[in-house]
Amino acid sequence: MSDHQHIVSSFDRDLETIQAHIMKMGGMVERAISDAARSLETRDDELAEEVRGRDKAIDALEEQINEEAARVLALRSPAARDLRVVLTVIKISASLERIGDYAKNMAKRTSVLSQMAAVNGSPSALRRMAREVEEMLKDVLDAYIQRDMDLAHEVIRRDLDVDQMYNAIFREFLTFMMEDPRNITPCMHLHFIAKNTERMGDLVTSIAEQVIYLVSGQFPDDPRPKSDTTSVDPSLAPKGSH
Amino acid sequence: MSDHQHIVSSFDRDLETIQAHIMKMGGMVERAISDAARSLETRDDELAEEVRGRDKAIDALEEQINEEAARVLALRSPAARDLRVVLTVIKISASLERIGDYAKNMAKRTSVLSQMAAVNGSPSALRRMAREVEEMLKDVLDAYIQRDMDLAHEVIRRDLDVDQMYNAIFREFLTFMMEDPRNITPCMHLHFIAKNTERMGDLVTSIAEQVIYLVSGQFPDDPRPKSDTTSVDPSLAPKGSH
Repeated sequence: MSDHQHIVSSFDRDLETIQAHIMKMGGMVERAISDAARSLETRDDELAEEVRGRDKAIDALEEQINEEAARVLALRSPAARDLRVVLTVIKISASLERIGDYAKNMAKRTSVLSQMAAVNGSPSALRRMAREVEEMLKDVLDAYIQRDMDLAHEVIRRDLDVDQMYNAIFREFLTFMMEDPRNITPCMHLHFIAKNTERMGDLVTSIAEQVIYLVSGQFPDDPRPKSDTTSVDPSLAPKGSH
Repeated sequence: MSDHQHIVSSFDRDLETIQAHIMKMGGMVERAISDAARSLETRDDELAEEVRGRDKAIDALEEQINEEAARVLALRSPAARDLRVVLTVIKISASLERIGDYAKNMAKRTSVLSQMAAVNGSPSALRRMAREVEEMLKDVLDAYIQRDMDLAHEVIRRDLDVDQMYNAIFREFLTFMMEDPRNITPCMHLHFIAKNTERMGDLVTSIAEQVIYLVSGQFPDDPRPKSDTTSVDPSLAPKGSH
């Protein structure tokens, strides 16, 4: 019995360490999104460069979490719910790593964009979108630590707002480009950023799904409503072919 | 001793099943890429619709592989190299699922694009790029099954060709859009497809990295050379601001 308790508590201690690393990684990714969006809005090349530099630490932390998870699997051989916890950690850290990559890519484009004429209003629209994703990420990490299914569901619902913001920005860029060909190159880059931010929202959503799986043992029923309607919205077709 | 052999061979049998599912999934994803690119080139809405419909089966297979991997971890508690094999399976199936998603998105845009004026030559350039990615995927799956590090390294190297194809297409689209505003909307969609194809190449590369990790226990030394230079190439800046 005391042996068993010993094993359980070692497992719990291992898990706590890994979860602390997930939270640390989450904080770094939140900061990357926020700084990347700010560097874009204020044309701050130095801050953009910083974001790019810091991505290595995020990648390293994912690798560390993977190693820790593998170690726990090898040493403790968890089953059932405990196994689910460890597998969830692998999935969540992979999603965080990809969100970090998107933030890094946003920062990369900041450097290119700061050499071009500004496109009115776009950076602040993009920053609002990024801020919403950042808030969602903060909430999904809370939902993860507190095993809060309701909050996870709310995060999934909020991804629809991000998708709507993206769709509005996409249309706006098309208009800008048609109005003035000088807007074409900057808008292509800005559009990248918008699309990547929308993808960050999708990744936060998939973390929320992992939280729901972790707590309930099942993925959410409703396939989450999709999302970027620019690929299916017929109203975008006539616009381009007139 | 016979007990040990029994356990080992059960584990091997489980692994064989999972690997067969990985290969099946890989085949489905290859076909999705190929059909999506063909539907784009020939403006075949029906084929595009098929690709979209088949993505559910790919997603379901990933889920099944995850469950099988979790079951093996729980029942067999593999350690060291065996554990690496199981963890690799989880990563590779996740990458395949994402490549499938990109193929589905390509097929979605086919439906929108077939309502617009064609942009000369672009679909065939995109199809060449997609074909290269499809070949890389085929080879990386061979490398996986044969535990062939050299082939995995070759796949990583070939991703540079895909990146160059993408960069060429990106520049071409900018030119088309500046020449004629009617090209703007279709080029935005085509550019999505190009970027997603480039990302498929990145995902194939990360499968190749998993193969190298699986065989050698280490990830490849050289951080793989990046890639999409449109975000850092200063020659793209003046173009847009003149």
